[in-house]
Amino acid sequence: MKELKDYIRTIPNFPEKGVMFRDVTTVLQDPEGLKLAIDEMQEKIENLEFDIIVGAESRGFLFGMPIAYNLNKAFVPVRKKGKLPAETISESYNLEYGQATLEIHKDAIKPGQKVVIVDDLIATGGTLEAIIKLVERLGGEVIRVCCLIDLPELGGKEKIKNYQVDTLIVFEGK
Amino acid sequence: MKELKDYIRTIPNFPEKGVMFRDVTTVLQDPEGLKLAIDEMQEKIENLEFDIIVGAESRGFLFGMPIAYNLNKAFVPVRKKGKLPAETISESYNLEYGQATLEIHKDAIKPGQKVVIVDDLIATGGTLEAIIKLVERLGGEVIRVCCLIDLPELGGKEKIKNYQVDTLIVFEGK
Repeated sequence: MKELKDYIRTIPNFPEKGVMFRDVTTVLQDPEGLKLAIDEMQEKIENLEFDIIVGAESRGFLFGMPIAYNLNKAFVPVRKKGKLPAETISESYNLEYGQATLEIHKDAIKPGQKVVIVDDLIATGGTLEAIIKLVERLGGEVIRVCCLIDLPELGGKEKIKNYQVDTLIVFEGK
Repeated sequence: MKELKDYIRTIPNFPEKGVMFRDVTTVLQDPEGLKLAIDEMQEKIENLEFDIIVGAESRGFLFGMPIAYNLNKAFVPVRKKGKLPAETISESYNLEYGQATLEIHKDAIKPGQKVVIVDDLIATGGTLEAIIKLVERLGGEVIRVCCLIDLPELGGKEKIKNYQVDTLIVFEGK
């Protein structure tokens, strides 16, 4: 039987030389792979009490939204600078291949609301750290981080070690 | 009872003066709004026979993925230039506020597969026209386009009039 990991395609030297890019589009372009990915991520968090799934542009949207729908939660997007139309707060950070600024709507999370962050992959942890800061600055409580893929050699889990992080698939190397 | 349209927030003068931006994040940040949006879009297409939902970065991901999961279809992302790691084809086009290039993986759609395109909004129709071209260049057949919001004054439906387009909410003006 085909396992979730078998659906992931690896592209060497993308977006730059030396990087083994883990491509999740091949998971989603097979209805069985898509269902498996969402169901397995969802299992990790379905017994938690929380209010909101937060996912970052763009691949966090892919995995966060079906789970939010299935568990009857809200979905709050974190987006790149300048994309969200209402009042925002922002965090700048270093990511695997450069620098970026992420934003969240100021009124998207109310103080005390419990949040699960969903993303496709944890690499250096820079993106997730920025998302956590945005959620906490609005008074939200991050009770779990759930990612499809972990790249442990890049040290992401270590960077956000004060938070519980669930991942489904581990790839060695960078 | 709150209707789907009531969840949409309008932001005047974003991203530029004179534009009334229809903000769907307020739909998604309420679990009831999120469920209503997905269920009503899904109703439009659930009786069609098709293989794949195609959605464009980023807001097409938000609406396309839960529907793909619910209807047991594949999801194929269309992304901005340089984001997809494997071999792609691309289309450049004019959008409401500038110019852009979209890409799709060459192996994401097989000739003869039936496709439904899902997006948040139809404005000038430029984005949707580019997505349709990408799908057809790979041999896919676009059997329906399904968007949450129509802005009829911008003429999008007219631009892709050879395709059946379903929309749920109409806003007058630009």
